[in-house]
This record gives sequence, C-alpha cells and structure tokens, in this order.
Amino acid sequence: MSVSAGERKMIPRSEDDILSLLDAHFPRSGRGLLLGRGDDCALLAPAELPRALTCDVFVEDSHFRTRYFTPYELGWKALAVNVSDLASAGADPEGFALGLTLTGRESGEWLDACFSGMADLAGRWNMALAGGDLARAGVLHFSITAWGRVECADLRRSRARAGDVIFACGEIGLARTGLLALENAGTPEDVARVRREYPASCAAHLAPEPRVEFALALAELAERSGAAVRMGLMDLSDGLARDLPRLLDSRRTGLGADIELPDAALHAEVLRFAGEQGESAARFAFRGGEDYALIGTCPPELEHALETLGARRLGEVRAGGMTLNGTPWTAPGFDHFG
Amino acid sequence: MSVSAGERKMIPRSEDDILSLLDAHFPRSGRGLLLGRGDDCALLAPAELPRALTCDVFVEDSHFRTRYFTPYELGWKALAVNVSDLASAGADPEGFALGLTLTGRESGEWLDACFSGMADLAGRWNMALAGGDLARAGVLHFSITAWGRVECADLRRSRARAGDVIFACGEIGLARTGLLALENAGTPEDVARVRREYPASCAAHLAPEPRVEFALALAELAERSGAAVRMGLMDLSDGLARDLPRLLDSRRTGLGADIELPDAALHAEVLRFAGEQGESAARFAFRGGEDYALIGTCPPELEHALETLGARRLGEVRAGGMTLNGTPWTAPGFDHFG
Repeated sequence: MSVSAGERKMIPRSEDDILSLLDAHFPRSGRGLLLGRGDDCALLAPAELPRALTCDVFVEDSHFRTRYFTPYELGWKALAVNVSDLASAGADPEGFALGLTLTGRESGEWLDACFSGMADLAGRWNMALAGGDLARAGVLHFSITAWGRVECADLRRSRARAGDVIFACGEIGLARTGLLALENAGTPEDVARVRREYPASCAAHLAPEPRVEFALALAELAERSGAAVRMGLMDLSDGLARDLPRLLDSRRTGLGADIELPDAALHAEVLRFAGEQGESAARFAFRGGEDYALIGTCPPELEHALETLGARRLGEVRAGGMTLNGTPWTAPGFDHFG
Repeated sequence: MSVSAGERKMIPRSEDDILSLLDAHFPRSGRGLLLGRGDDCALLAPAELPRALTCDVFVEDSHFRTRYFTPYELGWKALAVNVSDLASAGADPEGFALGLTLTGRESGEWLDACFSGMADLAGRWNMALAGGDLARAGVLHFSITAWGRVECADLRRSRARAGDVIFACGEIGLARTGLLALENAGTPEDVARVRREYPASCAAHLAPEPRVEFALALAELAERSGAAVRMGLMDLSDGLARDLPRLLDSRRTGLGADIELPDAALHAEVLRFAGEQGESAARFAFRGGEDYALIGTCPPELEHALETLGARRLGEVRAGGMTLNGTPWTAPGFDHFG
C-alpha cells in the first residue's frame, strides 16, 4: 500500500510523521502477534513450534551505497538478508523488528519508496512489522531482527561428513559481479549503463531473492526422509571461500571440499565480467560474497531429490583442504574487519 | 567472566576475534534457546506463554558520547534501555540479539569492558545473547532486540480512565541532570568533577537500572487483583511531558493529567542542578528524558498496594489538558527528529 500523492512529497519532520508513514505500509497487527506496534513491546503469541530468530545490520558504505541503490532496493534488501537467514534455518518468515537510523537527508518520498520495498518483500510471507526504533546519525543504518516458525526439521550448519554432496540453490558470483560493476560506475549515467549491461548481476546485488520456498521444501524433504540430522544448510553471504569452512565447521571437523565451478555452472554475466577483468571466472565466483544463495550438504542418496527441488551439485565433502576445479585453494574470503 | 589479561590488550583484527571475545563473556546457549549463537539463526524453544519483544537502537552522538561514557557503561546502557521496555510490558527478560557497528577505533580492552557491562546486566536475569551481527561504520551503533516471558498479566499503555492514579517507580529528572551536567563538561577533568558532584545523576544517565522486579511484582498484583485490564504501564524514555500523552493515549482519548512534582518528590541533585540553572526544578524534571523510570496508571483503590511495591503517586488522570503543580503545561517534549 502506498500513501497518497499529496503526502508523498512531505519532508518528515518528527518521529510521529515517520511512524505514520510506516503505518501506511505495514499493518499494526499481524501473524503470530497478540499485540503489534505502538507500545513499549510487541507481544508474540505462544508457539507450539520453535521459532528461528536472526539479526542483521545493513549499513551505508559498509553494505550499500546510496549512490546506486534506489530507496526501494534498500528497503527490500535490508529485510531480504534477514529472510535469507530464516530460509537457511528452514523457517517460515513470520515477523520482524526494525531499528532505523536516518541521516535527515531522506525526504518523505524517499522513505515512502524505502518502506514500499520492505513491505513488498514482507508481504510475500505476510510478515508483520512488530516494532522498532528510530534514531538519527550521519550514516544510514538498518538493523533488523526477524523470526519465523520452524514447522519441519530445523536446518543448520555443521552436519557434513566426508563423501556428502555439496549443493547450492541460486547463482554463485552473480551478486559480486553486480557489486563490482556498480562500484566502478562513477556517475548516474554510468550506473544506468551498468544496470542495462548487467541486469541480472545488479538485481542479485541490489534486490536479492531469499530462497524461502526452496528451503521449506528442503525442510519437508529432510523431515520426510528422516535425514534431517544429516542435512546442512546456510546462506551464502560472505562468498563460498569463506562460508564453506563455516558450513563444514572445518576448524573442528578438519573437513574440506572439492568444488567444481565449470563455466556452464556460472551465469553468462559472471563469465563476461570476469573475462573483462582478465580473471578466472571460477575463482572470481568462488570468492564472491552476498549471493544469498543457499548452500548445503546432504548424503549422496538425496542428491537426486534435491535436484528436483531446484538445487545443483557444487562438489563433495572430504577430509582435508579445499580445491576449486582440481586446484588447491588457499586465499581467504571477505572480512569486514580484515 | 573476563578474558585473560594477555588477551585484553589485543586490537581485534577480524570478526572471528570479536566473536571469540563475545564467547568469553556470553555463554553460547541459554534460557529458552534450543540453539544459541554460531549458526544463521538461533532457535527459540516453543513457549506456552506469550513473549514480549522490543528493539532499541543506541547511537553515538544521538544517544551517547564516548567522551564521558566508559565502554562498560555503554554496554550496560545499550541493553538496559531494552530491558526497561520489557519491564514496562511486565515481562521477565529472557534473551537478546545484538547488532553492533564498530568504528575500528575500539581496542580489545575497550570491547572487553563494553561486553563486561552488557554481560553483567544480562547476568542478573540470566539473559542469553542469542545472536547478532557485526559491521563497521564511522559511528558507534548498538541495536538490540530483546525478549522476555509474560508470566502474569501483560501490562501496556492506554488503559487509563479519568480519576485513575498516575504513579512512578524511579526518579524523575535525575537522568536529565546527569546528561546536561556531563554535556557541559568539556575536559576529562571536568567529567571527573561532574561525576563526583552529581554521582546519582551521572549513574542515572550512564548506567540506568531497569525496574524489572517492580514490574514483575506489579504484573502479579494486577493478575491477583483482577485489575490487569485497568493498569497502564510504560517506561519513561522521552520525559514525562512527552510520554504522559502516550501513556494516556491522549490524542484518541482526550485524557490529560494533573501532575504534582513538589521539591520533596525530586532528588537533591535535581534541585541543586535546576537551581544552578535558574530553572524551576519541577519544570526541569517534567521535561527530562531517559529516566527509564516506569510510569503507570491504576484505579484509585490500588494506590496503597502500589506504594507498598515502591511506587509513588505523581498525580491523577482527568479529561482535558495537562497541569504541572497547578499550572497548565503546553511546551512539547523531546523528539530526535524535531
């Protein structure tokens, strides 16, 4: 829902104005809530099932640039990265709380577009905005805590054994292509050109699609097949190079993986961009962060069932280190504090 | 628990270093959790009772200054403001998620002290740190979502009727005294002097005490007396002038209040500071924010029972506007975006 054209151009002047704009986009009550926004706390209904809960921050110049994100995309992605975490736990998204720090540069129109993006994503699963807080600082900062119902098997990391299949749902390296192409675009005209030339990559970076339906189908399969405790899943936020050791709990288990990323497994835009940079597409994709694909491990006998759900094989778990297309991998992945 | 002296001086270099420091202060599993930190999501156990949930941000130069907050106090207060919201809903604090944005200036010693303050407060109610996220920006930024179990009556705003008693648990205007005195202190020596001269005020601003025990006793009283639906409660974060209309839902109900703040009801430091500023102590205290006292409304017949719990009468609800010590009140309160 959008507020009327007459209201859209206003510059919000007070917390109450911004709260009214939120009310125009998000109903005050919703799924799983006994009491919604507007009091000191929301009240979550008693739950017979476990709830998965995650908290992700989304910060200007650390996770995004206002130079090439539209406000709609910012609202969408701030929530999407949390929903992706819920998916990786096999949870059905139910609600969220929003901590929003504005800089004072945001107009009413800007906020309206931002809340539209967030509300459109929330609406897919009928997620309720249960509460939150507004503040002001020099940096635009979203902080979202989201939760969802775990109806079947809960899925988590660290369940791999040697010989298990590593699979992915979603593209590898596509968001990194979008990020780097957009970072290279200095002017609004450059940004528009990159959006035309790399549409899938830009979409993957600017407005990623959380893989909820795949994850829920996977959780059901895990429950039905009795293989829940043998199925690992996580979302790919920092790139395969950094996230695979987390999925395998490599420090503790000593497990590694043989990964195959042939050109046929990569998006045409990834191949084109890596080629322009004179890089190996496989190595480029293997390092790339923020794909919000889901990666997981399962016993080999479930590989076919996973493919029917839309996943594809990336490789195999083994004792020892990591190889990419047969070559040992040693370089690290991405670290905000590195 | 504190990490060893050898580790304390290190400058954290990676997310993993900071996560290890968190592990030294907060156990990985805890109350109400099937799965704690370390995966994409935490898993909250099924709950027969409702859960209250709140989200508050705590932002450098908007809510605090590193110039006069110690890191221990920052960690304490970032969580305390959330726990105060839980108290105002009559909830027993159970767990929280932390979104922490650092600037890169924080040493390992600084982080250790900050996490100590947060862990000391969390430990009072055995609250679990269930998850979170780290990021980097130019501004220090805490974002906490906390939840708790509502075992008796849930308490909320907007339940007042004309003739009800308005009560408070905690000092009025003391935190504002601390804030303004510290803001006036330009050098570390000035800060030390203010801390000596206004110890209670500084403590109220720097390390507020959430009124959980009072709130839980109040919830039990409300349940026992059958008066739950007639009892309003909220936490005083923006000052009486701004928060009272919220407690009374004045816009909708048209309710106001006659408030009495005689000198005898105010802390000696508030009287002294307001006197030095040449201000009326009552007006000064009435405007003051961030006290994290609890304020509420109840039917007159419960006034005595409330006093035995430690609350004291502030005044009475009536139709119409607001008076302070018999004089009509018109000036607005505090607004981050005002």
